[in-house]
Amino acid sequence: MSQTDFDLVVIGGGPGGYVAALRAAQLGLSTAVVEATHLGGICLNWGCIPTKALLRASEINHLLHDLDGYGFKADAVSFDFKKIVARSRAVSKQLSSGVSHLLKKAKVPVFEGFGKLDGVAANGRRKVLVSKKSGTPQTLTAKNVILATGARARILPGLEPDGQFIWSYREALVPEEMPKSLLVIGSGAIGTEFASFYRNMGAAVTLVEVAPRILPVEDEEISAIAHKEFEKQGIKIFTNAKIGTPKKGADSVSITVEAGGKTETITVDKIISAVGIVGNVENIGLEGTKIKVDRTHVVTDELCRTGEAGVYAIGDLAGAPWLAHKASHEAVMCVEAIAGKHVHPIDVTKIPGCTYCRPQIASVGYTEARAKEAGYKVRVGKFPLLANGKALAMGEPAGLIKTVFDDATGELLGAHMIGAEVTEMIQGYVIARTGELTEAELSETIFPHPTISESMHEAVLAAYGGALHF
Amino acid sequence: MSQTDFDLVVIGGGPGGYVAALRAAQLGLSTAVVEATHLGGICLNWGCIPTKALLRASEINHLLHDLDGYGFKADAVSFDFKKIVARSRAVSKQLSSGVSHLLKKAKVPVFEGFGKLDGVAANGRRKVLVSKKSGTPQTLTAKNVILATGARARILPGLEPDGQFIWSYREALVPEEMPKSLLVIGSGAIGTEFASFYRNMGAAVTLVEVAPRILPVEDEEISAIAHKEFEKQGIKIFTNAKIGTPKKGADSVSITVEAGGKTETITVDKIISAVGIVGNVENIGLEGTKIKVDRTHVVTDELCRTGEAGVYAIGDLAGAPWLAHKASHEAVMCVEAIAGKHVHPIDVTKIPGCTYCRPQIASVGYTEARAKEAGYKVRVGKFPLLANGKALAMGEPAGLIKTVFDDATGELLGAHMIGAEVTEMIQGYVIARTGELTEAELSETIFPHPTISESMHEAVLAAYGGALHF
Repeated sequence: MSQTDFDLVVIGGGPGGYVAALRAAQLGLSTAVVEATHLGGICLNWGCIPTKALLRASEINHLLHDLDGYGFKADAVSFDFKKIVARSRAVSKQLSSGVSHLLKKAKVPVFEGFGKLDGVAANGRRKVLVSKKSGTPQTLTAKNVILATGARARILPGLEPDGQFIWSYREALVPEEMPKSLLVIGSGAIGTEFASFYRNMGAAVTLVEVAPRILPVEDEEISAIAHKEFEKQGIKIFTNAKIGTPKKGADSVSITVEAGGKTETITVDKIISAVGIVGNVENIGLEGTKIKVDRTHVVTDELCRTGEAGVYAIGDLAGAPWLAHKASHEAVMCVEAIAGKHVHPIDVTKIPGCTYCRPQIASVGYTEARAKEAGYKVRVGKFPLLANGKALAMGEPAGLIKTVFDDATGELLGAHMIGAEVTEMIQGYVIARTGELTEAELSETIFPHPTISESMHEAVLAAYGGALHF
Repeated sequence: MSQTDFDLVVIGGGPGGYVAALRAAQLGLSTAVVEATHLGGICLNWGCIPTKALLRASEINHLLHDLDGYGFKADAVSFDFKKIVARSRAVSKQLSSGVSHLLKKAKVPVFEGFGKLDGVAANGRRKVLVSKKSGTPQTLTAKNVILATGARARILPGLEPDGQFIWSYREALVPEEMPKSLLVIGSGAIGTEFASFYRNMGAAVTLVEVAPRILPVEDEEISAIAHKEFEKQGIKIFTNAKIGTPKKGADSVSITVEAGGKTETITVDKIISAVGIVGNVENIGLEGTKIKVDRTHVVTDELCRTGEAGVYAIGDLAGAPWLAHKASHEAVMCVEAIAGKHVHPIDVTKIPGCTYCRPQIASVGYTEARAKEAGYKVRVGKFPLLANGKALAMGEPAGLIKTVFDDATGELLGAHMIGAEVTEMIQGYVIARTGELTEAELSETIFPHPTISESMHEAVLAAYGGALHF
């Protein structure tokens, strides 16, 4: 008979859940994962990974329509949309199998089913009930339980995904055919990525944001550059906008957009609703426990502990920022604390965020505005990619690097980037923030030439009056 | 009459020279630059920058022949080689004009001519004689002189560039037409970049290296992966190889290559000689001074001082590593010291190196072998890009990240990368080395998902038994 009692049971096999299990196994804890659908969760299957495969396609499509500038020619450029989507699904599948393989190698059993807390056994162990698609539910017991059930798209009334006209990210990832026109509601990372992808694939795209600017969590200057670049690419943008109720026709859907004192009716093939996410707090056995829920998210302390001893919550379920790397980092921290190691709570100002649109956006720490709100006297440095040799050589001159320093100590408070490859570059600033480095150390760092990353150096020098190339 | 006496005269307008002048102007020193040919030097005009424009073309050509895998199609793919070369020249020209503009803005006059030291004036100021293409030579005087005359290709006897069959990097950058076959002698960064560029553009390429492995300064494992990837791409490689004297025919050139006990005669359109560089120490007035020259390079101390008070040498002229970012960093340090600021000497183990081949290569600090030679007990971490989600999503799974830590202290001693985008990523490790960060701080750093840079994190975790995804 197979094992049913563990040191740790993790409910949910997404990037928080499976990483928690892998780390626990490394630390010698007997561990099991309960997962209802896909290992790898939304991230691997319906988020980060498949969207990046699509992004690659949209980059290629953009390049294929810009060949002349590089000295190339090609006739009859076309794409097979089904093949592009299939490639994206294949990458997801490969990584999901990879997770399954890693768990097997770590000797972590995966219980396929829907897991929920089910009280405490006579011996004091936590009970987890696993309901399978068919057959009798099974009970596992464990000293510790990590809840990592993730989150899902927030659904606005009237904008319920219908598989035909209204899409959430899920439908937007597996379209049957390429839509000719789309309206995206919400300009956070998810909405912006889809707007960028579909526009670069050739669709007419409208992006609607209720806030005064797109990408509202980014630094204002970065938002403004993104806005300008998206408009150059032909994306129609409405900010401070209110939408009406969609009216579905035979082949298209219409919706009113009210902005700037005018109301316009926009008719498109598809509407993508990307207006935030809600935690998966339902049916996981929270009722009758001391675990608190606040606006669809489980309330935890800085070490991911809930109101019940031995029960933890991590990742999207435990609230913003809804990022896979926040989930996996919480996973490692939470498990190490369970194993008795000394751990540091996560500082959200050291968590980077990336948006994979064109140009890419990446940031970490305080925006200029938030640093000032927090009472810092700041020094700000900026460097445009237009002044960077590699960016010019690559034909990618759009973008800006901006740094925010604490004038009192010289510590890097935040960094904000828009441009080619910035999602791969931001880690340098994250390392600097984690090491609490100052402008002196960053100024002294020798960045390799010729790279776009030299602009990161210049943006530091610029904050202290020493920029060389601008 | 225009000014002829300065706080500082810089001889040479390359990345060392013009950066020295810009920084000096920022610090309030009256400064002039003497430049005989192009502002921006080899780097901007004949090196880093134009090669990166060519690299972009070779990436595009590679992609255009691999479209099917991404779901795209195109007919009659072709390129106009003259246009590709012209684009690369245009980027160089744009940046060279940019340097001219920056110097003008900084009010630094540029004297067009060949500069040389010319003794000391009666008032104790250093004299610099500027010989122009035509007209009378002009004498400038200055309290300090920085020599930044750079370096040029080393010419082996029998392999003198002839404009027809034998190329140095200069001819290889401005070919009249695309050669069908090439043999590259020397597999350092320059030789490897040209081999990669021409192979990806469709030429048959042979790469010949006298050392036991290609890219001999890189970590052995990185060399080995590069070797394997290049062979997969169809580059023919000879290591431990000796070459004969080229025999020039009517339309091609033949050369014998002796390796592995066999001698082969290889006939190609062009031979590129990339066997190192020599400093431009001639005709700059070193005769009769206390300035020493060692193997074509001016001998300096750790603050770029030569044997003559008030005379400094920086960049390629002052020796290895021959990298533009080393030159510009020395420029800033040297000028700040002249201005009386406290400066830190450059630590070569904190200077990154990049090779822009496919896949890209980047590294900083100690290789595993050199760390052991230096007496360190090391911990080594490795992570293959094949296990990285973003690399798979981008269709770029070839590569490895390798870290070398000091077991005693946990300090990062070196990092070695091969794969997509690593030239933009290495700065994170350089920041870590400059801040003397340890594995603990790097492990705690939250790298954004999904990025190739997550592999940098995994390669740190791997050194301490905590890699999650491999």
